[in-house]
Amino acid sequence: MNAEIISVGTELLLGKVVNTDTTIVAKELSGIGVNLLYAATIGDNPERLKKAVLDALGRSDLLITTGGLGPTTDDLTKEIVAQAAGKKLVRHEESYRRLLSQFPEGMAAENQLKQVDLPEGCQVLLNDNGTAPGCVFHTAQGKLVMMLPGPPSELEPMFKNYGLACLLSGEKSVILSHNVHVYGKGEAPVAMLLDDMMDGVNPTVAPYAKEGEMFTRVTAKAETREQAEALCAPVVTEIKKRVGEFVYSVDVESLEELVVQELSARNMTIAVAESCTGGLLAKRITDVAGSSAVFETGVVSYANAAKEKLLGVPSALLEQYGAVSEECAKAMAEGIVRLAGSSIGIGITGIAGPGGGTPEKPVGLVYIALSDGKKTWVTARKPFGRIKNRDWHRHTAASHALDMARRYMEGLEITAVG
Amino acid sequence: MNAEIISVGTELLLGKVVNTDTTIVAKELSGIGVNLLYAATIGDNPERLKKAVLDALGRSDLLITTGGLGPTTDDLTKEIVAQAAGKKLVRHEESYRRLLSQFPEGMAAENQLKQVDLPEGCQVLLNDNGTAPGCVFHTAQGKLVMMLPGPPSELEPMFKNYGLACLLSGEKSVILSHNVHVYGKGEAPVAMLLDDMMDGVNPTVAPYAKEGEMFTRVTAKAETREQAEALCAPVVTEIKKRVGEFVYSVDVESLEELVVQELSARNMTIAVAESCTGGLLAKRITDVAGSSAVFETGVVSYANAAKEKLLGVPSALLEQYGAVSEECAKAMAEGIVRLAGSSIGIGITGIAGPGGGTPEKPVGLVYIALSDGKKTWVTARKPFGRIKNRDWHRHTAASHALDMARRYMEGLEITAVG
Repeated sequence: MNAEIISVGTELLLGKVVNTDTTIVAKELSGIGVNLLYAATIGDNPERLKKAVLDALGRSDLLITTGGLGPTTDDLTKEIVAQAAGKKLVRHEESYRRLLSQFPEGMAAENQLKQVDLPEGCQVLLNDNGTAPGCVFHTAQGKLVMMLPGPPSELEPMFKNYGLACLLSGEKSVILSHNVHVYGKGEAPVAMLLDDMMDGVNPTVAPYAKEGEMFTRVTAKAETREQAEALCAPVVTEIKKRVGEFVYSVDVESLEELVVQELSARNMTIAVAESCTGGLLAKRITDVAGSSAVFETGVVSYANAAKEKLLGVPSALLEQYGAVSEECAKAMAEGIVRLAGSSIGIGITGIAGPGGGTPEKPVGLVYIALSDGKKTWVTARKPFGRIKNRDWHRHTAASHALDMARRYMEGLEITAVG
Repeated sequence: MNAEIISVGTELLLGKVVNTDTTIVAKELSGIGVNLLYAATIGDNPERLKKAVLDALGRSDLLITTGGLGPTTDDLTKEIVAQAAGKKLVRHEESYRRLLSQFPEGMAAENQLKQVDLPEGCQVLLNDNGTAPGCVFHTAQGKLVMMLPGPPSELEPMFKNYGLACLLSGEKSVILSHNVHVYGKGEAPVAMLLDDMMDGVNPTVAPYAKEGEMFTRVTAKAETREQAEALCAPVVTEIKKRVGEFVYSVDVESLEELVVQELSARNMTIAVAESCTGGLLAKRITDVAGSSAVFETGVVSYANAAKEKLLGVPSALLEQYGAVSEECAKAMAEGIVRLAGSSIGIGITGIAGPGGGTPEKPVGLVYIALSDGKKTWVTARKPFGRIKNRDWHRHTAASHALDMARRYMEGLEITAVG
């Protein structure tokens, strides 16, 4: 089944509201194997909306509209869609009674009532979180039309609780995806490794860039979940084989989640000492709900005095090598393990920019160390002349530290750089 | 000028990614008076994309595409748009050299190079945050076409720094905006305070919600910058008067930037002790370039042991009141000032959730203290029964701490809650 979404609302075209309605509906459609081919946004303009509806009914099996079902005069989706589909609007008695009951006696404003005028013969979708009901109907040409309200808090439960069931009544197939997450190899080199796999149809294989990382999505369609899994499994295995130790997870969405899981599974704890990342690494680890079981202590030692006093980095070391050095990163990692008594400790020091760079120590140079109290490893991340900003340097330095923790736990070479 | 956006990417139609690109571009277009009439999303499908591009070029003066400029084979926007507009793609030499310089010698994968093949005669838009440049060109029919990369971190600066100027170059008039940033009063109450000002035409006054804050944008259009300034100035002054001490800045985009500026101007320093925010406050302060002059030390004391050992929070206090208490927040703020020797110190402790809440101490309860070494103030943030998540609680707690620092420096009541 091919589908199309039309979101109605001038506020979307003014950039005042992000169109999450489309994302919510799109995600569910992909979950039940409906192909969404177009998603359009149109303002509260009758002519342009009618044209878009007619185009959609001409080329797609299913049209879902979002927004424009409310009480005000610029809510015109129902009127236009009904017109385009050749349906009359008639007062839906049950919805009318329900609407009246949602207001104190006599308090339903006159304009509220237009919300319960619905296309003749439609199936009504209850709105458990607002006043405007949705609806589903077939056109004379056999196309399916569904209208949903605009506020995501009304649309999401209506679509999931009632709308999907209307679409599923005919359908048999299941769509299933797995994401293979990679750190240390970019989108382009991974795409080259998987080049021959990208023309596959079932499953499909598609690479995506993600800030400083990439992932490959494998998607299969089948009659049952088990069959879809069986189609995906060998492809996921092959990708893991080709990309090797740079794969950090299948379906665990971030390095921090993965690291918290792995620490947890091993009853290990982590502590971090950050200079240029300024708390970002601690923040990312503690973004994960439940991280308190594995996260001990973080120190943000921006000033040298803090490095000496809290982490015991020797002042002679700071004088000889400078705060941005392999030696300082190591001393920070060792210092935080000592201080926190954690299983492993991370030390990060570098130059996030935009200022502070020199020819020898340019912006983007970051040293990252991992210590387990017995041994300490350190990696230098050097800028490639890529034009990257402060946020990027900080984010990727924190990612790299997380990947080193993963590599430590998995017994891989800790300082390998992709 | 009538405009249209086409966002390209199957991931958008699968509901895996929210289309924020459209919102970013739409907002800026509305700011310069361009009418956005349509926004469409198309998958990585050549035929459907070509059809959409031809439709757009047929009916709109300006077409902006987002996404599909990257190195992989499913990145096909440029090829299709150039085809539809009758333009050849040619290697853009400067972008080619720039691309090569972004990789270590010989490390640019072959497929990277297609990113620098651009429509003949186009104007190139630099990508300061990625490898794929954007471009602008006129079609033979005089339509303007702009192509922007998909990742919002690349699109947003490219469009704001370079793209907008291309759209404005023909214009005689100047559009100028000022943003009045507010913490402690929401969008709805501020909108009520400014109700009579919102119908203004030149300047326009529009309220926007921002995570846990709001701002009001004042936009004027005039022949010169000076004239536009003169139109805005009295309105900005009136807004500041009505909203009062809740206004934290005009045009300084975030609380952290404002606080770093204000500390800097006063030769003051700050140190932070965080529990539930887990490094987020330190991260936000150190997001600001140049923060090293004012940021001393951060301690993330998730574990009670860390609170005792590093910050000197008495174990008796922890036993009597618990880690989530006014007393603990105060002791943390006082402890970090002592440890860091900074001008002011912040202590944050609370329950970010989703787990860990109790009837007495529910998820969302956060205590935030500020100490200057002599005196300590503390605020309790209580959840309103609103359905908010971990990120929200952490973000707004950090914002509140920053606002307390601002209030301290400005001599306002520190524990006032809007």
